[in-house]
Amino acid sequence: MTPFRRIALIGIGLINGSLALALRRRGAVEEIVACARREETRARALELGLCHRAVADPAHAVEGAELVVLGVPPGSMGTVAKAMVPGLDPRAIVTDVGSVKAQIVHDVMPHLPTPSLFVPGHPVAGTEHSGPDAAFETLFQGRRVILTPIEDTDPEAVQRVRGMWELTGALVDTMTPEHHDRVLAITSHLPHLIAYTIVGTVADLEKQTQSEVFKYAAGGFTDFTRIAASDPTMWRDVFLNNREAVLEMLGRFTEDLVRLQRAIRWGDGDTLFELFSRTRAIRRAVIRAGQAYDRLPVPPDAATDNGPASEAAKSAH
Amino acid sequence: MTPFRRIALIGIGLINGSLALALRRRGAVEEIVACARREETRARALELGLCHRAVADPAHAVEGAELVVLGVPPGSMGTVAKAMVPGLDPRAIVTDVGSVKAQIVHDVMPHLPTPSLFVPGHPVAGTEHSGPDAAFETLFQGRRVILTPIEDTDPEAVQRVRGMWELTGALVDTMTPEHHDRVLAITSHLPHLIAYTIVGTVADLEKQTQSEVFKYAAGGFTDFTRIAASDPTMWRDVFLNNREAVLEMLGRFTEDLVRLQRAIRWGDGDTLFELFSRTRAIRRAVIRAGQAYDRLPVPPDAATDNGPASEAAKSAH
Repeated sequence: MTPFRRIALIGIGLINGSLALALRRRGAVEEIVACARREETRARALELGLCHRAVADPAHAVEGAELVVLGVPPGSMGTVAKAMVPGLDPRAIVTDVGSVKAQIVHDVMPHLPTPSLFVPGHPVAGTEHSGPDAAFETLFQGRRVILTPIEDTDPEAVQRVRGMWELTGALVDTMTPEHHDRVLAITSHLPHLIAYTIVGTVADLEKQTQSEVFKYAAGGFTDFTRIAASDPTMWRDVFLNNREAVLEMLGRFTEDLVRLQRAIRWGDGDTLFELFSRTRAIRRAVIRAGQAYDRLPVPPDAATDNGPASEAAKSAH
Repeated sequence: MTPFRRIALIGIGLINGSLALALRRRGAVEEIVACARREETRARALELGLCHRAVADPAHAVEGAELVVLGVPPGSMGTVAKAMVPGLDPRAIVTDVGSVKAQIVHDVMPHLPTPSLFVPGHPVAGTEHSGPDAAFETLFQGRRVILTPIEDTDPEAVQRVRGMWELTGALVDTMTPEHHDRVLAITSHLPHLIAYTIVGTVADLEKQTQSEVFKYAAGGFTDFTRIAASDPTMWRDVFLNNREAVLEMLGRFTEDLVRLQRAIRWGDGDTLFELFSRTRAIRRAVIRAGQAYDRLPVPPDAATDNGPASEAAKSAH
């Protein structure tokens, strides 16, 4: 895979920051230019070695870059794309790391001098932390990256972006933007919406009960608080920009929840037991797919069987 | 703390099995008698060293025991309590590890020769695994155990049960059964119901989308599959036996979810952003309460700051 001479990272938070660390570690890039509006972010990105230079103006950041990675919240992609164009080399490949794809394709492509060189992408990886300090080199190892080229997208550009992600240890797939948005609506967007909701429900409880909720959170609530600590701006944009798919999946979820509510009210234990048994099989399928690890104390080799980036491997670092 | 001469464990799964390992490790008990209906379970419990003897009949199991721990699904507590009475020493202390309390107090106490020696309890700890093979010695370390004595409960019996749990490294609190059920409804029961529901929603998706869901589960879905892999029988009983509190919390949750659904449909970004920012503070509160750990790569010492039983410590074993 041909490494890159100069890459511009527009936005330098968890994702673009981790990408920078992974590429530098592999010696895959000669120069990384980061772009961030806030002076504090630029200073921190330099301190953390996430880039060689940090600038405020997107057009300035992309000058002479052969690859540009848009790493800002979905709702800002169009704006930064437009802002960088004056400095953009028409031969430069542009990609993004947004969690929604159809809307971003719609917002970004019209601004670009060479729309066919835009390769929409989404690394399905992250933590509840955001900002440059949250970045770490192994974030993408064993994780999936979804590229969603459209009909006119240049296949060679797709190959180069794929190559970049493979250098980080990620597994790269391609699908249409619309299909991506539908799959992620259920695997990621809806889970986040639900987690945000229940944590909010707790936030509204009487103060005394609330302090106890924190004490006994280990009972299951803890996982939800982690998800619900994710970046608010990004997630607001995700829901606003993947509305149809999220509302459809939310509709299915609500119907299923009301069905269980009814089963509980009427003491219908069979309906509960039947579902609770079925969901166990799904867990096994997810573990087989390498997206989860078994939390029982396991030998390190067993843990890595579930992917080097499994939580087990991560927290054992 | 006076160790025990003979303890009878009625049911020998994840919780009672882990209790056995923790007590034996501390040399806190001379003899542990386990009771399990299935021959296979009894054989496994002996192989794993969870007990000195394993029997099928509750009345036989409790003979000569000074402490009896009921570790069966909430819906079976009354039945096993009744079944063991013929062999029960009227001076024996009886406790349980059920996830609901008011209903268990109601089901168990009437059968006992000395109701004042029944100390209802609930260790707020567990994994998605069940059965004797899931047991491990450190399950309760740094975890909370809630005892819910009622007015007539003998204070000395409460002290002895508290002492037993403290030997496992648990932090013991007391509250009324009703208050326990209300707090756990939101920290544990509702999160499990929601996780079971969304995993079930996925189980109903078209097969092709479903296989992709597993591939991209890392986006947030993974945490839900883990919770939704918990023991079906136990959880069916939890919902049937804590109905009022669960339905009330579920009502609050549904109202909040519908509010967000409406915000998404109408593109109300402010409502989403405001909530998503508020929930971040809750995460910090939960971490402060020691019920979660920060998943960013941390030095081992930092990890144990959050309690030796934190997932970080566990998976790093």
